[in-house]
Amino acid sequence: MSRLTHIDENGHANMVDVSEKSVTTREAVAQAVVTMLPETLQMITAGEHKKGDVLAVARIAGIQAAKRCSDLIPLCHPLMLSKVTVELEPREESNTVLITATCKLAGQTGVEMEALTAASVAGLTIYDMCKAVDKGMIISDVKLLEKKGGKSGHYKVDA
Amino acid sequence: MSRLTHIDENGHANMVDVSEKSVTTREAVAQAVVTMLPETLQMITAGEHKKGDVLAVARIAGIQAAKRCSDLIPLCHPLMLSKVTVELEPREESNTVLITATCKLAGQTGVEMEALTAASVAGLTIYDMCKAVDKGMIISDVKLLEKKGGKSGHYKVDA
Amino acid sequence: MSRLTHIDENGHANMVDVSEKSVTTREAVAQAVVTMLPETLQMITAGEHKKGDVLAVARIAGIQAAKRCSDLIPLCHPLMLSKVTVELEPREESNTVLITATCKLAGQTGVEMEALTAASVAGLTIYDMCKAVDKGMIISDVKLLEKKGGKSGHYKVDA
Amino acid sequence: MSRLTHIDENGHANMVDVSEKSVTTREAVAQAVVTMLPETLQMITAGEHKKGDVLAVARIAGIQAAKRCSDLIPLCHPLMLSKVTVELEPREESNTVLITATCKLAGQTGVEMEALTAASVAGLTIYDMCKAVDKGMIISDVKLLEKKGGKSGHYKVDA
Amino acid sequence: MSRLTHIDENGHANMVDVSEKSVTTREAVAQAVVTMLPETLQMITAGEHKKGDVLAVARIAGIQAAKRCSDLIPLCHPLMLSKVTVELEPREESNTVLITATCKLAGQTGVEMEALTAASVAGLTIYDMCKAVDKGMIISDVKLLEKKGGKSGHYKVDA
Amino acid sequence: MSRLTHIDENGHANMVDVSEKSVTTREAVAQAVVTMLPETLQMITAGEHKKGDVLAVARIAGIQAAKRCSDLIPLCHPLMLSKVTVELEPREESNTVLITATCKLAGQTGVEMEALTAASVAGLTIYDMCKAVDKGMIISDVKLLEKKGGKSGHYKVDA
Repeated sequence: MSRLTHIDENGHANMVDVSEKSVTTREAVAQAVVTMLPETLQMITAGEHKKGDVLAVARIAGIQAAKRCSDLIPLCHPLMLSKVTVELEPREESNTVLITATCKLAGQTGVEMEALTAASVAGLTIYDMCKAVDKGMIISDVKLLEKKGGKSGHYKVDA
Repeated sequence: MSRLTHIDENGHANMVDVSEKSVTTREAVAQAVVTMLPETLQMITAGEHKKGDVLAVARIAGIQAAKRCSDLIPLCHPLMLSKVTVELEPREESNTVLITATCKLAGQTGVEMEALTAASVAGLTIYDMCKAVDKGMIISDVKLLEKKGGKSGHYKVDA
Repeated sequence: MSRLTHIDENGHANMVDVSEKSVTTREAVAQAVVTMLPETLQMITAGEHKKGDVLAVARIAGIQAAKRCSDLIPLCHPLMLSKVTVELEPREESNTVLITATCKLAGQTGVEMEALTAASVAGLTIYDMCKAVDKGMIISDVKLLEKKGGKSGHYKVDA
Repeated sequence: MSRLTHIDENGHANMVDVSEKSVTTREAVAQAVVTMLPETLQMITAGEHKKGDVLAVARIAGIQAAKRCSDLIPLCHPLMLSKVTVELEPREESNTVLITATCKLAGQTGVEMEALTAASVAGLTIYDMCKAVDKGMIISDVKLLEKKGGKSGHYKVDA
Repeated sequence: MSRLTHIDENGHANMVDVSEKSVTTREAVAQAVVTMLPETLQMITAGEHKKGDVLAVARIAGIQAAKRCSDLIPLCHPLMLSKVTVELEPREESNTVLITATCKLAGQTGVEMEALTAASVAGLTIYDMCKAVDKGMIISDVKLLEKKGGKSGHYKVDA
Repeated sequence: MSRLTHIDENGHANMVDVSEKSVTTREAVAQAVVTMLPETLQMITAGEHKKGDVLAVARIAGIQAAKRCSDLIPLCHPLMLSKVTVELEPREESNTVLITATCKLAGQTGVEMEALTAASVAGLTIYDMCKAVDKGMIISDVKLLEKKGGKSGHYKVDA
């Protein structure tokens, strides 16, 4: 039967042993969606400079958060990411910014948490930069889109 | 006209000057919702020990993340939180865990980002601890519920 | 003659070169003991919830400290722990909590410092959570119990 | 009746609200003792340079750890230390190094944990630097010696 | 006679006591200069997007480093910056980028180190982003330009 | 044509993919020079203790900064340094301290940034410790001296 791997037989949370897991290339893609007022989205996208900076800051925050994942999520293993990208796509039709984070490494444990953390923190950073004009922004649909490598195989959400 | 306070006249992102803002008691409440399979929620809530540990770990992760907010969100000011609480409420009717984070301080700048960060990271931690059995969990409705203190006054989302 | 490996021929502290050491599975077990008043121990152990939370918080703090060891101990190498467990055993006969931390990795350098740091910080966390009722708690017997892997071979303290 | 202040009525650990506590000058002194082989102590104290460096590294590690206390101990409040000193005294009669850490600030919460953390991490650093020649070192007697300021008044251990 | 304030009478480095210093508004401005090949500077400045991103990343890195200063510089006091700005000015006549960092707070200790750290890390980030095409870049003229507030009064370098 | 590797085709900064790069031994040497008043240099070098401590603190700060490089420089990969040394040489003829940092690892990416960061932070630490007597100190000539390993081969600055 499947069970919560981070909880041992006594109900105690611990960092699981991955020593015996094989080193394989692992990749994960996660997303987050930030919904805002139409005016807020326009402020982000209007003007080369502004767009560059709001989205650039969120992108950098997401990348750095991916690297700090094992520091933030108590039972995550430390690992050496070999690639992190965070893309931010303003979508006027839905007044949202779609954030997609991709993490990759050759290691003994998956990188889902790194990708999810990157997407979340990029979203929080957009909130921070726009909160003076729009306190009602919502971050939603934070989820894993795809995961490759490791024993559990390929996982992909249907589009 | 309102504008993005973190972006200066040249379109450059910088940490805004709050030196002249008055020191007032500030409080913010934020939430996040983690949606999961019914079986996953049962694993979390079944058994005193397990419940204690899964939710305790998420609560601690959220509290620590609040303290590390200015390290994660590039343009947040460092500040000295005087209170952080993170409550996690399993809701069987919706197969969700509702996370509510409250932050407080006497300072020159609000604590919305701290509360939002706490709620998000608590949600990510639940994902981490349950991902072996449920990769499809979704974190959503990350939003500010209430904010008190400071020049912008009381902000409260309608229930 | 044996010498302090972190001090070079000029008496300068530096992070030693482990590039040529072989990658082997390394494991270390360390302990710490927290001595307290009988009433304090009872508060920790009385009631499912309280016990869960005091010890759960200390366990998580210990695990996270193990991951941050190279950040805390100046000449420790950064490394990627593949396992960390922290167990806390209340012992009524001696009014103590016995903390046992185990760390593991496949790498070029041992994990004694990670295990010792985990045990120490778990002990400090117990102190923090109980200090309102018992300022006289003492953390003692912080020591390495066992070490496996690496050139120096198996080290084990006699029971 | 006294109770564990970090645990709320539901048995949940949270960072307590200190918003209403008055800002006073607070100071705490804590100690740790590292016991080692006579030869190990001689290596530390023999030669100006070596002594300078082993003890200097431990002192710096302790000071930095005091500043990082709220990051390590989950329910500690972030605070702005106005003074940290760490003194290390080799004592040949007992083959020990006595570590004494003092922390000070004007704030709403005490600095016991900062002083205890500084003393512990200084002790761990000595262990790290000498472990190649003496794995049996023991850190003990980690305790609060004195605490001034705040509602609970002056606390001092009898010599 | 003036002396090194961080070194006590025994020659030991410690974090000095600023408890009795008055809280005043303090500001510091520091600079760094990155010299590079003409082609490298052109790559940075050619194209709106690229310029936005290289300089935006360096700016963010500098701002975040200012906040982490007490973590990096062992004897710096933790403090709560109320403003950080980092400006980067490409200067074609000298094939340099001039970095100017300004930090401000109301506190008991100056913010020179925060400004110097921000300028340095912004410079290192430019190096990182351009090193694939120009390993010979040099960071120089890292210095304090101006300092206001505190007992030592106004300090300003002649232009 | 060579280009800025950290900027993708859309002008966005991201952490480049090094997954396919081979694991080789990589080493980098970088320097920084701190220029000061003759009296300041004398204070650093006069007396065994003082010298030990000022330079020891700077050395430790540099070593720790090397380990924290990927946390400071946004697009740097996390990596596991197998060696870090920081040497500081007071040079009376030029009223300078020459800082030389060496980093090494077996990995997929170079360690130039780690060596440059170590040298810079060691220089900033000297500034911090001497700023009470000499605010005009300048850090300059921060540059890569040598780089070995990896696809780009051996790089060495002419003496």
